[in-house]
Amino acid sequence: MNLEQLIASISPLDEGAMTQARHRQAQLAKPPGSLGRLEELSIQLAGITGAVHNRMEKKHLLVFAADNGVVAEGVSSAPQSVTLMQTINLTRHKTGASTLCKHFGCEITVCDVGVNADIREPKVLNRKIAYGTGNIVHGPAMTRMHALEAIQIGASLALDTDADVIGIGEMGIGNTTTSSAVLAVLLDADIEAVTGRGGGITDASFLKKKQVIRDAIAVNQPDKTDVVDVLAKVGGFDIAAMCGAFLGCAAKRRPVVIDGFISAVAALCAYKLCPQAVRYFIPSHASYEIGYKLAMDAMGLQPLFLLGMRLGEGSGCPLAFEILDAACAVINDMATFDQAGIDDGYLDEIREGDKFSVEGAK
Amino acid sequence: MNLEQLIASISPLDEGAMTQARHRQAQLAKPPGSLGRLEELSIQLAGITGAVHNRMEKKHLLVFAADNGVVAEGVSSAPQSVTLMQTINLTRHKTGASTLCKHFGCEITVCDVGVNADIREPKVLNRKIAYGTGNIVHGPAMTRMHALEAIQIGASLALDTDADVIGIGEMGIGNTTTSSAVLAVLLDADIEAVTGRGGGITDASFLKKKQVIRDAIAVNQPDKTDVVDVLAKVGGFDIAAMCGAFLGCAAKRRPVVIDGFISAVAALCAYKLCPQAVRYFIPSHASYEIGYKLAMDAMGLQPLFLLGMRLGEGSGCPLAFEILDAACAVINDMATFDQAGIDDGYLDEIREGDKFSVEGAK
Repeated sequence: MNLEQLIASISPLDEGAMTQARHRQAQLAKPPGSLGRLEELSIQLAGITGAVHNRMEKKHLLVFAADNGVVAEGVSSAPQSVTLMQTINLTRHKTGASTLCKHFGCEITVCDVGVNADIREPKVLNRKIAYGTGNIVHGPAMTRMHALEAIQIGASLALDTDADVIGIGEMGIGNTTTSSAVLAVLLDADIEAVTGRGGGITDASFLKKKQVIRDAIAVNQPDKTDVVDVLAKVGGFDIAAMCGAFLGCAAKRRPVVIDGFISAVAALCAYKLCPQAVRYFIPSHASYEIGYKLAMDAMGLQPLFLLGMRLGEGSGCPLAFEILDAACAVINDMATFDQAGIDDGYLDEIREGDKFSVEGAK
Repeated sequence: MNLEQLIASISPLDEGAMTQARHRQAQLAKPPGSLGRLEELSIQLAGITGAVHNRMEKKHLLVFAADNGVVAEGVSSAPQSVTLMQTINLTRHKTGASTLCKHFGCEITVCDVGVNADIREPKVLNRKIAYGTGNIVHGPAMTRMHALEAIQIGASLALDTDADVIGIGEMGIGNTTTSSAVLAVLLDADIEAVTGRGGGITDASFLKKKQVIRDAIAVNQPDKTDVVDVLAKVGGFDIAAMCGAFLGCAAKRRPVVIDGFISAVAALCAYKLCPQAVRYFIPSHASYEIGYKLAMDAMGLQPLFLLGMRLGEGSGCPLAFEILDAACAVINDMATFDQAGIDDGYLDEIREGDKFSVEGAK
């Protein structure tokens, strides 16, 4: 299906199931709302799946890997070859995100959409569009057709997984630069407000990075009302594919977890293409990257945890899956007020005539 | 051992193990610091256990249950009998915290230190000191001897567990009132700044609750420099036992997780008795209760996650255990830069002469 068909296939949440889930939460033996976002997440999940009771048994992290021509400008702390190295290491459970995936029992798919090398590791899914993007300081990252192709690849992967919950991560040296550029255009934001130090660069490189983003936008003149144009001109294959994956998950009615900054920018692209897709999105950690909060605020989302992380790869997703699973456990397994009553003679034990009343606890 | 001996048995963290853990974190194939608090937690755990590599295999939640005489003033949304009901339900995996414990494979011990009923459920550990405390509006909650006994009970439970990590929770209708009173005294804080709505009370009850706390402090005149005096006069058996459990975990060199507001106030009492005990404490969620942040700030601690929870029982601990376990997985299982090198001929694949260098990624 093409992008218009993909967007058209995204439907609203199931309000009936959400009402049922809210009703059940109100019956559970606790002060109303006292489990906070665990309650909200269970209601959102009901809306997504159409069922009050869910389990996050199959967890799947999709990682999109690609290189970015802009690294030629010296905007990154690591050489471009690290993209290749870590793309392969992700499949071998050696990196941060893949270590966490292994620990928490999440499947991981690493998809090459544009790494600047031929990858012989068979565990890396080959969906390579090109050997890296163009240098955005001199012209567009890719053609519009390639941007649409990347979105399509991401959507297909999401539509093909049978997981209960999906996380969206990336590997691509230079992709905080492209993400900041995309974010600056989409939100009409100041470069200072959207640009951080990524993997950790020197003061000089940081100044350079901001100038590179300004130059890239000036040279390419992306149309901020046209997300595909923005992705093609100042984005990357990774961000475009991730954007497609967010849309694909929403189309498939699966909860989809946003990792850090780059993932949040890709989610914002998906949101700009289809605002109601956001109701399928689940935040994870508050990235240390400065632009993260802007992207999340623009979608009306707030992170679930505060770990000061800025690794990327999807490293925040496995912990978010655990929080979602906790939300499921609460709505599935907690006793209702009716079930919480102690019917084995304890009533007589209560001293001072204090009536044992399950009503009272409401 | 008595309280002085308990405090004297708390030793500093193992700085040598922490240095080793910091060194290993610097060798792992990621930008330095990019896993944020997962790195910090792994270093703290090394200091606590003396080993760089840890696993949080045995997880144990200790829940202290007690009644509070102050509920006679109408400061709570639930009747006192709910303490008994939920104390028993905690052992049956029906409540919020015990549902999460079951889901995440945490052992739970529910200890009666002062529930206002004889409990016949054998799974509830009987360490009852009295059938609830005195009403703090009219006089002390308990004698100084009883406060010391409660601390001793909590410490003994902590010292007896063989768990790798321990969480400290509570069940006791009225205990946000006593916690706010203890916090106001210890921090010389305004009642408005330390008092929230607990389980959810009306505007009228909320005003009453604040006046009750003011009255309790005025009547009892606790000595803010004497934690045991404060606990005895305006605290509760639950808070005192929890304080002892925090000290016991530190004495046993075990990481101990703070749940929400009441748990944070108990941790603050332990910190005031023995400042270096705080280095064994691990935060969990940011409680919705207003006083939580004050207590945590006073200890220099910041929460790990933001779920808007205010249930108590120890419900934030199981998720914190998962975060700690994730921190262990990272330091144990991630590849170092040396191990991350791809030695199977990929070097030749890199295009455009970009040198494959693990050094570069540092």
